[in-house]
Amino acid sequence: MPGSHLFYRDPLHVVRAEGVYLYTADGRRYLDCYNNVQSMGHGNAVIADAICQQSRQLTTHTRYLNDVVVATAEKALATLPARFEVCVFTCTGTEACELAMRMARAVTGKSGAVVLEHSYHGNSRLVGEMSTMKYPAEQRPVHIQAIAPPDLDRGPLDAPAGAAGQAYADLLPPAIAELERAGPGFAAFVCDTIFDSNGALPVPADYLTAVQQHVHRANGLLIADEVQAGVCRTGTFWGFEHHGIAPDIVFTGKPFGGGYPVAAVFTTRDIAEQWAARDAYFNTFGGNPVAAAAAGAVLDYAKEHGICEHVTRVGSYLQSQLQALAARHAMIHRVQGRGLFQCVDIADPAAARSPAPHLAQAVVETMKEEGVLIGVTGRYDNCLKFRPPLIIDEAAVDFAVAALDRALASA
Amino acid sequence: MPGSHLFYRDPLHVVRAEGVYLYTADGRRYLDCYNNVQSMGHGNAVIADAICQQSRQLTTHTRYLNDVVVATAEKALATLPARFEVCVFTCTGTEACELAMRMARAVTGKSGAVVLEHSYHGNSRLVGEMSTMKYPAEQRPVHIQAIAPPDLDRGPLDAPAGAAGQAYADLLPPAIAELERAGPGFAAFVCDTIFDSNGALPVPADYLTAVQQHVHRANGLLIADEVQAGVCRTGTFWGFEHHGIAPDIVFTGKPFGGGYPVAAVFTTRDIAEQWAARDAYFNTFGGNPVAAAAAGAVLDYAKEHGICEHVTRVGSYLQSQLQALAARHAMIHRVQGRGLFQCVDIADPAAARSPAPHLAQAVVETMKEEGVLIGVTGRYDNCLKFRPPLIIDEAAVDFAVAALDRALASA
Repeated sequence: MPGSHLFYRDPLHVVRAEGVYLYTADGRRYLDCYNNVQSMGHGNAVIADAICQQSRQLTTHTRYLNDVVVATAEKALATLPARFEVCVFTCTGTEACELAMRMARAVTGKSGAVVLEHSYHGNSRLVGEMSTMKYPAEQRPVHIQAIAPPDLDRGPLDAPAGAAGQAYADLLPPAIAELERAGPGFAAFVCDTIFDSNGALPVPADYLTAVQQHVHRANGLLIADEVQAGVCRTGTFWGFEHHGIAPDIVFTGKPFGGGYPVAAVFTTRDIAEQWAARDAYFNTFGGNPVAAAAAGAVLDYAKEHGICEHVTRVGSYLQSQLQALAARHAMIHRVQGRGLFQCVDIADPAAARSPAPHLAQAVVETMKEEGVLIGVTGRYDNCLKFRPPLIIDEAAVDFAVAALDRALASA
Repeated sequence: MPGSHLFYRDPLHVVRAEGVYLYTADGRRYLDCYNNVQSMGHGNAVIADAICQQSRQLTTHTRYLNDVVVATAEKALATLPARFEVCVFTCTGTEACELAMRMARAVTGKSGAVVLEHSYHGNSRLVGEMSTMKYPAEQRPVHIQAIAPPDLDRGPLDAPAGAAGQAYADLLPPAIAELERAGPGFAAFVCDTIFDSNGALPVPADYLTAVQQHVHRANGLLIADEVQAGVCRTGTFWGFEHHGIAPDIVFTGKPFGGGYPVAAVFTTRDIAEQWAARDAYFNTFGGNPVAAAAAGAVLDYAKEHGICEHVTRVGSYLQSQLQALAARHAMIHRVQGRGLFQCVDIADPAAARSPAPHLAQAVVETMKEEGVLIGVTGRYDNCLKFRPPLIIDEAAVDFAVAALDRALASA
C-alpha cells in the first residue's frame, strides 16, 4: 500500500530469522538490534512449539472456559504487584490502550487524557489522537492535553537538576485544569515507562511519583504503557518498577506473545468491578487459546532463563560500551536508556546540543552495510535505537559496537 | 475480568476441537454451529501447518520485504474485482474498520459516518460509536448517524414490497444532510453485507444499489464490512457480491486467518494514493509473515476445496431443512439468511409478529443439552443463529436440525 513505509533506502528482503539474526534473500546475515517483538529470540522453539501445539488442539474465542487462558492470566498477574488481580487479553497494544482508556473513562466519568509530547500509543482513532508524536497538534481534540517530557537537556524548563522532576510534573495540574475547563474532564495520565519515542529519555528519579501524586489528587487514573518497556526490556519485568510508582492500569503488547498478536490490560479488582458495572468488553481473537499459549510460553521462557537478570547484565555492558564510544566520537551527545533499550543521541559536533537527524539516519544505513540493524527515535529523530532481542549476548554486543565505531568514524 | 461474559448458564469448558466439533473437559462432544473464525474447520491441518512452519522460520513486522506477505495480498486481491489493487493487513476487524474510516476521512476531508441501527463493527472508541447495537443512542456523537435497516417485517416504513428497497435507502440523504449541517460532513456509509446483528436480515435486492447511488452522489465512500459475510460464508467469496454493488473499501476479519488474528482492508489504487498523500499507517503485527501465511492457507484451502460452492449447496440444504421445521413449529416466525449464515426468527405463537427473546434463549440452552452450539442475534435478540464452520456437511446439518426440532417441541 502507498503510505506503508519500509526501512532503509534499499529495503531488506528477509527470508528467515533465528536467535538474534535475520537472513535475507541474497544470503546475508544481519544482527538484529531493533526488534522488540521476538524478544525471546527469533524462531524461539519453545514459543513456536506452544503456538503449533495449541493451533492444532483448539483456537476459539473467550466465551467458553479454557484452562490455557486462565493459566496464562495467572502467570502474567504473578509478575505484577498483588493488587493487580484482573487480566484482559486483546490482540494489540493499540487495542489494549483503547481498553485502558475505556476503563478509565467509565470509572472516572470523565473522558480526557494527558500524555507526553511526542509520545506514541498506537494507531486507532482515539489512541492515534494520544500519539502526539504523529498526530498534528493543531487538530488535537479537546479531550487530549500534552505536557513536555522531562528532558533536562533540551526541554523548556530551566530547573536545577534536583528540582527538575517536580518542576516537569507540575506541568500536569494546568493540563488537568484545562481538560476540566474545556468539558471532558480528567480521566487518566498515560505514559510509556521507557519514554521510547522521546529517545528513551532518562527522567529524574522522582518524576513519575510526583506525576502520580497530581494524578491521584485529581481523581484520575495512572496508566502505564508497557508495550515498549514490559517483559524484561529494561531489566525489571515492567518498566514502571524503576520509577517507584503504583499505576492503576498497566497494559502491554509487542513482546508479550513472542511474535503472536496478543496484548493485555491489567488492573485491580476494584477498578474492574466499577468498569463492569458500566460497560462490557469482548474481543474475538483476544485471549484465544493460541494467543494465551504463546504468551504463556513467553512468560515461562523469561522466568526459566532469567531473562530480566540477563538483560540487566548485557544491557549494562551495552551501555558501557556505547559510553566508551562516546568518549571518542564527538558526534555522540550522550548515551541513555535502561537495560536492552539504549539510545545514542547524535548531535552536530560543531554545535554540541544541536540534534543531527541526517547524520543519525546515515549511521543507520552504514550499520546495515555493516550487518547490524538499528533504528532512530526521539523527538528530533536523532537517537540511534539499540533494542535487540533480549537473548543477545556480549559477543554480539561487541560486534554491534565495533560496527558503530566504524560507522561513526566514516560518517 | 468482570464484564467478560461467557456463553450459557453453565459455561462450556472446552479442551480441544476438530472439524465441526468441540470437546469439553467432561468428555462431551458438541457440534459447533456458531463459530465463524475457524471457518475452514477447527484444527485445520493445512492452516495449522502454515502457522507452525512460518512461526519457526520468520515472524517480523512489515518494515522489511517478505514474499509471503506479498503472495497473500495477491491471493486476497484475486478474490475481488480488478479495481481493488491495494491490500493492507491489520490484526482484527476492529483495526480494519478503524483504518477504513481513517482512509475515508482522509480522502473525503469529512469525518462523519452513516451506519445502520443495531449494527456492530468492533470494540475501539470510534468503531464502538459506530456499533449502534451496543453504543447508547443518547451518547451518540455528532459524527455518527444511524438509519433504520430495511426490515420489511417489523421496520418503521410502510412501503409496498417492490418499493421498500428504495424507500429505506432514501433514509440516507437526510442522515447525510444532518452530518453536513452539524459539521463533521459525510465521509462514508458502512454496512455489514449479511446484516448479522439485525438477524441476517433479508434486504430487498435493490437496497444497497440505491444506497450506493446516494453515497456517491454525496461524494462519500461505500465501505463493505465483510467480517461476517466474507470468505465464502454466504456462498460467494464476499457478501457484497449478492447486492450488485461496487464498494470503495472492503474489509474483513474473523474468518480471514482461520483462527490467527489477521484482518485486511482492500481498496483501489486511487483511494490509497489519495490517502497516502495525507496519512500513513503501520501495524506491528498486521501482516507479519505468520499472519500472512495463515491467511494464505485459508485462501488456498477455500479455493482448492471449493468452499464457496460447498457453502451454497449445504447452506441451501440447511435453509430448506429449517424452513421445513417452520411449517411445523408455530414459534418460528421466519427463516432468513444466506449460505451458512441462517437465522430462525422466534416469535410468540400467541402474537405472531412479536419477537420472543426468552424463548430463543431457552432454545439455545436446550440445544446445548442436545450437543449443538448456536447463538442468538437480531435487534430483538430472538433470532437463532446457525453459523457453523463452512466445512459442515449434510449429515451434521441433519443432526442440528433434528435437535432443533426437539428443542422447539419442548420449549
